[in-house]
Amino acid sequence: MTTRFDVLTVGNAIVDIISRCEDQFLADNAITKAAMNLIDAERAELLYCRMGPAIEASGGSAGNTAAGVASFGGRAAYFGKVADDQLGRIFTHDIRAQGVHYETAPKGTFPPTARSMIFVTPDGERSMNTYLGACVELGPDDVEPDVVADAKVTYFEGYLWDPPRAKEAIVECCRIAHANGRETSMTLSDSFCVGRYRSEFLDLMRSGTVDIVFANREETLSLYETDDFDRALTLLAADCKLAAVTMSEDGAVILKGSERIPVAATTIRELVDTTGAGDLFAAGFLYGYTQGLELELCGKLGCLAAGIVIQQIGPRPLGSLKDAGKKAGLI
Amino acid sequence: MTTRFDVLTVGNAIVDIISRCEDQFLADNAITKAAMNLIDAERAELLYCRMGPAIEASGGSAGNTAAGVASFGGRAAYFGKVADDQLGRIFTHDIRAQGVHYETAPKGTFPPTARSMIFVTPDGERSMNTYLGACVELGPDDVEPDVVADAKVTYFEGYLWDPPRAKEAIVECCRIAHANGRETSMTLSDSFCVGRYRSEFLDLMRSGTVDIVFANREETLSLYETDDFDRALTLLAADCKLAAVTMSEDGAVILKGSERIPVAATTIRELVDTTGAGDLFAAGFLYGYTQGLELELCGKLGCLAAGIVIQQIGPRPLGSLKDAGKKAGLI
Repeated sequence: MTTRFDVLTVGNAIVDIISRCEDQFLADNAITKAAMNLIDAERAELLYCRMGPAIEASGGSAGNTAAGVASFGGRAAYFGKVADDQLGRIFTHDIRAQGVHYETAPKGTFPPTARSMIFVTPDGERSMNTYLGACVELGPDDVEPDVVADAKVTYFEGYLWDPPRAKEAIVECCRIAHANGRETSMTLSDSFCVGRYRSEFLDLMRSGTVDIVFANREETLSLYETDDFDRALTLLAADCKLAAVTMSEDGAVILKGSERIPVAATTIRELVDTTGAGDLFAAGFLYGYTQGLELELCGKLGCLAAGIVIQQIGPRPLGSLKDAGKKAGLI
Repeated sequence: MTTRFDVLTVGNAIVDIISRCEDQFLADNAITKAAMNLIDAERAELLYCRMGPAIEASGGSAGNTAAGVASFGGRAAYFGKVADDQLGRIFTHDIRAQGVHYETAPKGTFPPTARSMIFVTPDGERSMNTYLGACVELGPDDVEPDVVADAKVTYFEGYLWDPPRAKEAIVECCRIAHANGRETSMTLSDSFCVGRYRSEFLDLMRSGTVDIVFANREETLSLYETDDFDRALTLLAADCKLAAVTMSEDGAVILKGSERIPVAATTIRELVDTTGAGDLFAAGFLYGYTQGLELELCGKLGCLAAGIVIQQIGPRPLGSLKDAGKKAGLI
């Protein structure tokens, strides 16, 4: 199967604004810890006023995944909407400089490019506060049919159910992908996001619109509204062709039919910032998967990439994942 | 002596765009290593196209120093010009969020806020490429006389001789400072900058316009156009009331009259990025100096702050320097 792209990802195009804070700050500002909190322009202004000195880095869950695939040496493409402003140019630069195909047209200057204020607590956990800005403009017109048709896997974020018309773009992407014999994939994104769109996500899986599902433990439990993780895994395995569930320091488990393949987490020196962990797991997994590697090795590449990104500030590894994969003897 | 501010700094207000590269990239693009290369808008566009994925962080030499003084718990103020754009708002947020008084009026949207593309090579050395943008607008109108009058030390960058009218603002600042019994200080900034403005810098020192001088070894040698470091130190000591000369892994030496006070560098775990080393040395030194600490201890605080900033990406420490100083038993 020769294609132009290994992985196409679709998501909210976001620049991260990252700062450290104490846990008390989250409580004082009613920020749900470890979650993605959606905020409007007014609250964005307020939180930014209260935020300490920060650094900026291109982010967005699926954008991070595309960058990760490319860093492994995979051929990646991305759809996502920025505005024609300085943050939009930064986002565009960074993803293209990583070698990712990115041609979604920016849309005017208002609303501005999305930003997520990420507060990293001393335990390394990140709590995100996302103003969607220009992301609300993403719609079916932004689908590049030839790119979808020529990508082995089209992957998208559950977060895309938050803006109004992105889901239409996704349904169209999945239709084109399957019409061309490709596979589709999604991440459940966030346990609260699952809470908002549970029935729609289950429908995407059960209708066969989505083939491969990425989730973490909390998202899986939320999807099936249970505290029984083992049962949730069984249900998830029945609802999609392939799933990979991450479990922080316990690594991940890959589900295919009745098969469960455990994957150990990589050893880390210091947990600095969990931002991007799930996104980079998906990057490593999908890179391996689209190279035709065995599922366990795909999982190991996912854990490797996740382990690297949580030892730095920011959502995308600054070094080459290809080099890291080679050094670890995985590729 | 009760004042509103310990340290006022004045400089080019710049947002850093930081990426890693190999040494070959510097050679291929005619970038002078370890230096501040001034570039125009066209070359900025070209280099950005060639630059890898980056992160953004507020920078600017004197801005970093003000942020460092504030991080130690000192009362800092800053003058520097941004444009009314997204990067300008980021710069403004970060310095104010650090607790620094910053009220310089932004000037329109064109030229845009200055940015410096910083390429960090595998040895940790940084090579800067600065487009001055809105910095060219800084002039005497931006001097807040009450702030200068009420700051123990007014500190400025030699880099300010690059934009057209900033030097007028500096001369005015020094006049006000001395009229109010305060002290003035400058950093020589960069050996090539010294090459451009050698006679003017010497004149600032010899006329008594500047009391305290910060420099590194290369800048000191360039100032006196000699290869004899010991001789250069003797000449420097004669040309100003007080000087602190940094020598990378060899620490620093403080010069006061015929007295030379050596200060050892702090031990570091890993050299990541030298960006901000000199700026943070000045921050630690000036914090200690304005608290009335002994010169050797001032030097140790400088070396501590410099040692911290070179072990991270970006020009301003993300953690509290006050906490670091306490942990090291220095304050």
